[in-house]
Amino acid sequence: MDEGQLRELLEQVRGGSVAVDEAVERMRHLPFEDLGFAKVDHHRALRHGMPEVIFGKGKAPEHLVEIATRLLQRSSNLLATRTTAETAELIRQRFPEAEYFPMSAAVRVWRDKTIHGKGTIGVVCAGTSDIPVAEEAQVTAEVMGNQVDVIHDIGVAGIHRLMNNRERLTRARVIVVCAGMEGALPSAVGGLVGCPVIAVPTSIGYGASFQGLAALLSMLNSCASNVCVVNIDNGFGGGYVASLINRL
Amino acid sequence: MDEGQLRELLEQVRGGSVAVDEAVERMRHLPFEDLGFAKVDHHRALRHGMPEVIFGKGKAPEHLVEIATRLLQRSSNLLATRTTAETAELIRQRFPEAEYFPMSAAVRVWRDKTIHGKGTIGVVCAGTSDIPVAEEAQVTAEVMGNQVDVIHDIGVAGIHRLMNNRERLTRARVIVVCAGMEGALPSAVGGLVGCPVIAVPTSIGYGASFQGLAALLSMLNSCASNVCVVNIDNGFGGGYVASLINRL
Amino acid sequence: MDEGQLRELLEQVRGGSVAVDEAVERMRHLPFEDLGFAKVDHHRALRHGMPEVIFGKGKAPEHLVEIATRLLQRSSNLLATRTTAETAELIRQRFPEAEYFPMSAAVRVWRDKTIHGKGTIGVVCAGTSDIPVAEEAQVTAEVMGNQVDVIHDIGVAGIHRLMNNRERLTRARVIVVCAGMEGALPSAVGGLVGCPVIAVPTSIGYGASFQGLAALLSMLNSCASNVCVVNIDNGFGGGYVASLINRL
Amino acid sequence: MDEGQLRELLEQVRGGSVAVDEAVERMRHLPFEDLGFAKVDHHRALRHGMPEVIFGKGKAPEHLVEIATRLLQRSSNLLATRTTAETAELIRQRFPEAEYFPMSAAVRVWRDKTIHGKGTIGVVCAGTSDIPVAEEAQVTAEVMGNQVDVIHDIGVAGIHRLMNNRERLTRARVIVVCAGMEGALPSAVGGLVGCPVIAVPTSIGYGASFQGLAALLSMLNSCASNVCVVNIDNGFGGGYVASLINRL
Amino acid sequence: MDEGQLRELLEQVRGGSVAVDEAVERMRHLPFEDLGFAKVDHHRALRHGMPEVIFGKGKAPEHLVEIATRLLQRSSNLLATRTTAETAELIRQRFPEAEYFPMSAAVRVWRDKTIHGKGTIGVVCAGTSDIPVAEEAQVTAEVMGNQVDVIHDIGVAGIHRLMNNRERLTRARVIVVCAGMEGALPSAVGGLVGCPVIAVPTSIGYGASFQGLAALLSMLNSCASNVCVVNIDNGFGGGYVASLINRL
Amino acid sequence: MDEGQLRELLEQVRGGSVAVDEAVERMRHLPFEDLGFAKVDHHRALRHGMPEVIFGKGKAPEHLVEIATRLLQRSSNLLATRTTAETAELIRQRFPEAEYFPMSAAVRVWRDKTIHGKGTIGVVCAGTSDIPVAEEAQVTAEVMGNQVDVIHDIGVAGIHRLMNNRERLTRARVIVVCAGMEGALPSAVGGLVGCPVIAVPTSIGYGASFQGLAALLSMLNSCASNVCVVNIDNGFGGGYVASLINRL
Amino acid sequence: MDEGQLRELLEQVRGGSVAVDEAVERMRHLPFEDLGFAKVDHHRALRHGMPEVIFGKGKAPEHLVEIATRLLQRSSNLLATRTTAETAELIRQRFPEAEYFPMSAAVRVWRDKTIHGKGTIGVVCAGTSDIPVAEEAQVTAEVMGNQVDVIHDIGVAGIHRLMNNRERLTRARVIVVCAGMEGALPSAVGGLVGCPVIAVPTSIGYGASFQGLAALLSMLNSCASNVCVVNIDNGFGGGYVASLINRL
Amino acid sequence: MDEGQLRELLEQVRGGSVAVDEAVERMRHLPFEDLGFAKVDHHRALRHGMPEVIFGKGKAPEHLVEIATRLLQRSSNLLATRTTAETAELIRQRFPEAEYFPMSAAVRVWRDKTIHGKGTIGVVCAGTSDIPVAEEAQVTAEVMGNQVDVIHDIGVAGIHRLMNNRERLTRARVIVVCAGMEGALPSAVGGLVGCPVIAVPTSIGYGASFQGLAALLSMLNSCASNVCVVNIDNGFGGGYVASLINRL
Repeated sequence: MDEGQLRELLEQVRGGSVAVDEAVERMRHLPFEDLGFAKVDHHRALRHGMPEVIFGKGKAPEHLVEIATRLLQRSSNLLATRTTAETAELIRQRFPEAEYFPMSAAVRVWRDKTIHGKGTIGVVCAGTSDIPVAEEAQVTAEVMGNQVDVIHDIGVAGIHRLMNNRERLTRARVIVVCAGMEGALPSAVGGLVGCPVIAVPTSIGYGASFQGLAALLSMLNSCASNVCVVNIDNGFGGGYVASLINRL
Repeated sequence: MDEGQLRELLEQVRGGSVAVDEAVERMRHLPFEDLGFAKVDHHRALRHGMPEVIFGKGKAPEHLVEIATRLLQRSSNLLATRTTAETAELIRQRFPEAEYFPMSAAVRVWRDKTIHGKGTIGVVCAGTSDIPVAEEAQVTAEVMGNQVDVIHDIGVAGIHRLMNNRERLTRARVIVVCAGMEGALPSAVGGLVGCPVIAVPTSIGYGASFQGLAALLSMLNSCASNVCVVNIDNGFGGGYVASLINRL
Repeated sequence: MDEGQLRELLEQVRGGSVAVDEAVERMRHLPFEDLGFAKVDHHRALRHGMPEVIFGKGKAPEHLVEIATRLLQRSSNLLATRTTAETAELIRQRFPEAEYFPMSAAVRVWRDKTIHGKGTIGVVCAGTSDIPVAEEAQVTAEVMGNQVDVIHDIGVAGIHRLMNNRERLTRARVIVVCAGMEGALPSAVGGLVGCPVIAVPTSIGYGASFQGLAALLSMLNSCASNVCVVNIDNGFGGGYVASLINRL
Repeated sequence: MDEGQLRELLEQVRGGSVAVDEAVERMRHLPFEDLGFAKVDHHRALRHGMPEVIFGKGKAPEHLVEIATRLLQRSSNLLATRTTAETAELIRQRFPEAEYFPMSAAVRVWRDKTIHGKGTIGVVCAGTSDIPVAEEAQVTAEVMGNQVDVIHDIGVAGIHRLMNNRERLTRARVIVVCAGMEGALPSAVGGLVGCPVIAVPTSIGYGASFQGLAALLSMLNSCASNVCVVNIDNGFGGGYVASLINRL
Repeated sequence: MDEGQLRELLEQVRGGSVAVDEAVERMRHLPFEDLGFAKVDHHRALRHGMPEVIFGKGKAPEHLVEIATRLLQRSSNLLATRTTAETAELIRQRFPEAEYFPMSAAVRVWRDKTIHGKGTIGVVCAGTSDIPVAEEAQVTAEVMGNQVDVIHDIGVAGIHRLMNNRERLTRARVIVVCAGMEGALPSAVGGLVGCPVIAVPTSIGYGASFQGLAALLSMLNSCASNVCVVNIDNGFGGGYVASLINRL
Repeated sequence: MDEGQLRELLEQVRGGSVAVDEAVERMRHLPFEDLGFAKVDHHRALRHGMPEVIFGKGKAPEHLVEIATRLLQRSSNLLATRTTAETAELIRQRFPEAEYFPMSAAVRVWRDKTIHGKGTIGVVCAGTSDIPVAEEAQVTAEVMGNQVDVIHDIGVAGIHRLMNNRERLTRARVIVVCAGMEGALPSAVGGLVGCPVIAVPTSIGYGASFQGLAALLSMLNSCASNVCVVNIDNGFGGGYVASLINRL
Repeated sequence: MDEGQLRELLEQVRGGSVAVDEAVERMRHLPFEDLGFAKVDHHRALRHGMPEVIFGKGKAPEHLVEIATRLLQRSSNLLATRTTAETAELIRQRFPEAEYFPMSAAVRVWRDKTIHGKGTIGVVCAGTSDIPVAEEAQVTAEVMGNQVDVIHDIGVAGIHRLMNNRERLTRARVIVVCAGMEGALPSAVGGLVGCPVIAVPTSIGYGASFQGLAALLSMLNSCASNVCVVNIDNGFGGGYVASLINRL
Repeated sequence: MDEGQLRELLEQVRGGSVAVDEAVERMRHLPFEDLGFAKVDHHRALRHGMPEVIFGKGKAPEHLVEIATRLLQRSSNLLATRTTAETAELIRQRFPEAEYFPMSAAVRVWRDKTIHGKGTIGVVCAGTSDIPVAEEAQVTAEVMGNQVDVIHDIGVAGIHRLMNNRERLTRARVIVVCAGMEGALPSAVGGLVGCPVIAVPTSIGYGASFQGLAALLSMLNSCASNVCVVNIDNGFGGGYVASLINRL
């Protein structure tokens, strides 16, 4: 039952052709959402320039292209994460403006470049191997309408590299920090800045890194109070939360 | 060496009483922070109404009282987390305005109640057993200058309780969600609102909850993109990050 | 807005004192539950003889007594799990018919002994140390209106004990099997019977039992297809699910 | 020794050709099962329309076809789980009525469609990636003689989707809920309905999902009392237990 | 139904007072064990000098004394593991010959000292902190009728201590090796001798020993082929298996 | 320095051409093993019919063939575990009597079939998927000179299969039990027999079996006292320890 | 057999009273160590000023005092770690010069203060809660004859504190770094200096620190190549290894 | 700004062409490192013959060759770990003196063979499967200017092999010990020698070795006080730390 149907029912009540009792009964079991009122607004986060996002992993190329086509009919921008070169090629054949980012395997259609974020989002990674995850965060934050300042390879084992970038870091309104191995960078960045830090552990490492578990635990135990954490390799999540914060 | 001392050195260089070589030498080995420039500003997060915070666990009562006394000489507000009733009593003897929160074992001196946050911070918990952690988040957010809207006991196993509070939730600018056992509430809240959600797993549960591990993993794997996570039982961290976000 | 209020609104629509547009608007933002229709029925499981249940762990004795008193005003039966002898004594002072089960620390008020279950629920444990968990399952199933057949100490290391009880087991409509250490009993029982088996791992054991993890994993990997599992030491959950099944 | 042989022995005792002592001796060491009495009835679960089931993983195609052929000589229906497209093709060459379900890799021969279940089994999944596991549950429940109502993609991060399906859910007699990532859906469904819920964690996710461990722990710690759990990705087990329950 | 009853039934069959059909029917549902034939012999391991064993942990002192008293009515020897000093005192009041071993908290009544083992059982521990576990193994092996040769404190970090005892080790028929921390001793002993080695990990250690997990994993991965393992701190199990082997 | 050289030195001492002091000095720093006395006897386990054993995993085919050739120059029998079909083919070209076991990937040269074991070794597995591990145990025990009685597919979910084989099991002098999934079979077998049981967990299973961890933990926590455990999938180890025991 | 006995045997050989064959035979089976040659020198590490060390945990006070007394008869210095205040008091009654360190619960007798280390050992900790572990390292390094430079509370969340101490750090010859929570400090220190860094994870933290596991994994995955790790809370081990290095 | 530029600025101050205020301002925001003073010296570890090291894993061959080429313009020596045969071939085409080590997949250019280490570094491994990790340690230690003494295959299960090499081991100044499976060798070596031991767990093993976790835990819990640990399979780290120690 949508708003039109509700209106019709109320008209019938007003006109007397439907008794109050009957109207109550008919309304009792309707799925509330379809009434139009008590509208579930969980899509609100995606309005106003937020792109439609497709999690590409495990989706067949042609399937993904179809979804992308359909989404782009009602949205200017599109982000597909964890795709493949093959999928990207198919999308670009249909949407020549689509960009492919081979390191993070993201595909982006970025027609509407309106800036929604109030400041700059810093995207930082500890080592060059963490760049794919950082790139996913960057691509996400950009397509969600943010200025992004990317700084690579400033891990704590060469702390001067971090110190050299302190000014840039303090200019950001929120920072996404991607790190694998010992995952110490978010704590160090968190201690240098006063803004929220979104820590993204990466699965970079070997042996006792246990596919990112070491970095994850490290970040959850950060002695810097301004650090919060998303899942291992979840660059998209880091960029997404940072974008929400930067709009506030 | 602070800026005054640097200035003096440069004046001496200008006046010729210190040779360039000697000035270079004296500058070479100074701790950079004491130079006054390249100032380390990690304390910035604590300025402008942010309280001084003491992690009380493991500190002797008299020791903690001394720290509190010293901190309150240069700060209007104070927060001490994970204290004891004994410690709280000692603090209240010296600072009668101190509040003690027995569930979370927090002590707060809240003289300066200026509001710094731009909106309301929601603090939500899944079950009544999670209240101590939620209280720590609430106490933290309040003393950092925020309006806080607290909603208890809206876990997903009674989803109508959550739905009934949707309006209040959507009015918050950022939400801290505390949950133990299966830790599902942040995902459900995250799906209802468009703002950032800080998930705080609690150690509530038994058996395969493994002292909060189940809730932690659940939250890290949230299918809601606007969720980020802090350590198990870290209500303070949740309230702190939310406060930073609410100031933006 | 309850059903009365909705009726009143519809009457006003019918009477013309409220326009259709205005009625739509007023209905749009009401919490759906308070409408009286679209009623959330999660309490349904507790109706018709299902007792009110209190998880006693961590609740102060006087607090628990108050809850119990309030619940017993609208319910004949009561179950409180994981209480203490002290709490039990307080409850019995107020409700002399209350039973206390020291092994499982359950308190039960069982005034209405109507049988709701269609058959017998088997409650089985592997060793004598598992009896407290089995007792919690038994007490739960009984107060929910079931005939319960309890068999203790038939672990797989003495498989003749299991075989000797095969007839009793096959007469049950659903069986709750509690076992610690290697947790093998649910698989063996599951292979003997054709009914659903609810496996409850217990934390009984030491060393590599890891507080019930060994038994839990064992049960999750059961080669018997009719076995499903609840949390470690969750005798209540086992009895509860079995009771739901036995009513079908 | 089957019943015939036992009878013969007893006749000989009666006729005097075998002494009592000798009869006792001969019966002492016989495998009890072959006596015909003390009959092991673990196959009972498979009688009365329960299909023969083959766990296909790791079996060579030709081997699996042979087993299927043999089983179909004494059974109308057949279910083979975790097969391959190649195996399915071989089976269909021999049994043209065989269905192949590519997502779950199940093969089914469903000649006898008698309904044995007393009500409807709900099969629900949280996200589209969980469909293969849900399909295995569905295929199992159907071939075991049940009406199945399948609802996809109603995860908790879009809770209105769940609420919209409440009526359908409450009509089920037992529900199988498949979810990966944070595994929160069984708790939410369990809170909405009063029937038993069989939770099936899936290995869908990445990073800290640890191949389904996060979902598994989440489900074991469900705050909804009517939830029990089977192994990760065990759609068959979920459908099987639900079928047993639905026959009661 | 015991053998006498079976005999009676067969006599009735022979005499014609019970028809064959009826005899078959009555035998069909008897618990097989009570028939006297098809005797379950799992107690065989305890016959011929094997003591009755009580796992004392969690048993009330007076309860344990009762069990002990009852067992000693049909057995010369008794072993109770993981008791307390209080329990031991109670047992000694009733059975003055009872020995108490305070390190391992074992109580032993050892009246029948017949030697059943064919050779010597070596019981070895790595450090002095492992002695309680080794003592439990020793006490078990002795009361089961074995010569035991105990060697303490020959851990691999002082390998000469091990080498000095090589002759004694090679004289044993089977060796129980108890070690905590890195758990390396069973591998080293296993390399020196040709007999079976029963490795008992102990929970001695701290930090990354994880209550014996490190030692357990170490022993399971032993590069010596003659090593098998029992549970953490399971000195009884080590002594028991060694005793079974030594009787062969 | 071998025994000959020692003799020569002692002769020189006797003859007076070497002084006692000099002899002491020359003996002081010799590697003790090369002296010929204080002989390291860790190879003893391989004497008297024990075959040479090669762990084939990770070894190049031609490399493995060379090792096999060299070993067979001083040994009648040979066992190579975890090889490949390619390696097996190469070995058979050189040693036509070599057997290849494709399920366990073992290669065996078994020229000397002398029986060294005093009784029969039982080799048992729970399901057909565990056969490769059981086969490795069987092949090992046979080539080490034992009568082996193999029983497949008697897992606890069909406990009558186990009961039917009780007589065969009780005839064994030591039993190797291989099981994956819930790993319950060793406990059940251990309860039926009085001899030592060597439990071999296998990696068979999926999801929460965690590659054999569930079975391993189950076996370590066995409530049957006569069970000890070797590493996951270590059929060789099970057969080896059983062979050592069977020679006693 | 000590050197004297060997000499006597050789004299007998020389004198002809013992034949060469007999001498060979008698030497064949002697424990090599007691020969006096092939001397096991594992105590060498404790010579030359290394103190005797007692691991106090679990030792009775009077027992520990006895050991201490005996050790101090042949050694000037003594270190007992993980003692209690009670034990310390007993030791000081007998050895008034004994120092007690209440934070780390170490007792030290330090009579011989000879410096054996060639440079300074840095002992660093991240937070004030890590001081007990750092103190154990310091006390160990000092009593082993080293100059120690202790720096507290320079965790990475306030990286300027670390930078301010860079000069002191670079002057050390080897550095022990103690850190709990995220355990990031050893990586940061390791990046600043060129000397070996011994990382000591501490159990400081809560929730997902898992008693030091987070810090341990972090340190094992350090991106600084000069970091190696000892057990959680093993300040003694850190100080010991550093002392060995500093003597080189 | 390097030292020259600082000098120039100070000259301008002295000459009056730049005001003190302006000089302060210009100095305020300079990255401290580029000043030339307060020099970050984390590269110091690589000076004086330390080779440039490339972690090859995940780098494209042509990319790695470019890095190698660039590094060799300012360094005599080069080490690339975890490369591939293809990469090695490309490097050798450009630098014919490059060595490739197929077991460890390391590539080394070793033009400057100056010895910097003061003694010999022992590199030891337990089994032949550990050789690749030991080789990485060896190649690293050599190119960093050390004499290396390599001993293979002296695991504790054949302890005489270890004892036979005791003299060589005691001659080393620091020892790197690589072991998989139970990881016991570092403890045994540590007990024999008085020098620091760097333990490198390897991922060699199967089942409960959990990819090296068993060996790692074993080494962290070593009862030998002179053992410290690096990450699983981190032969480079072992060789690097040993080289730093050997230079002291």
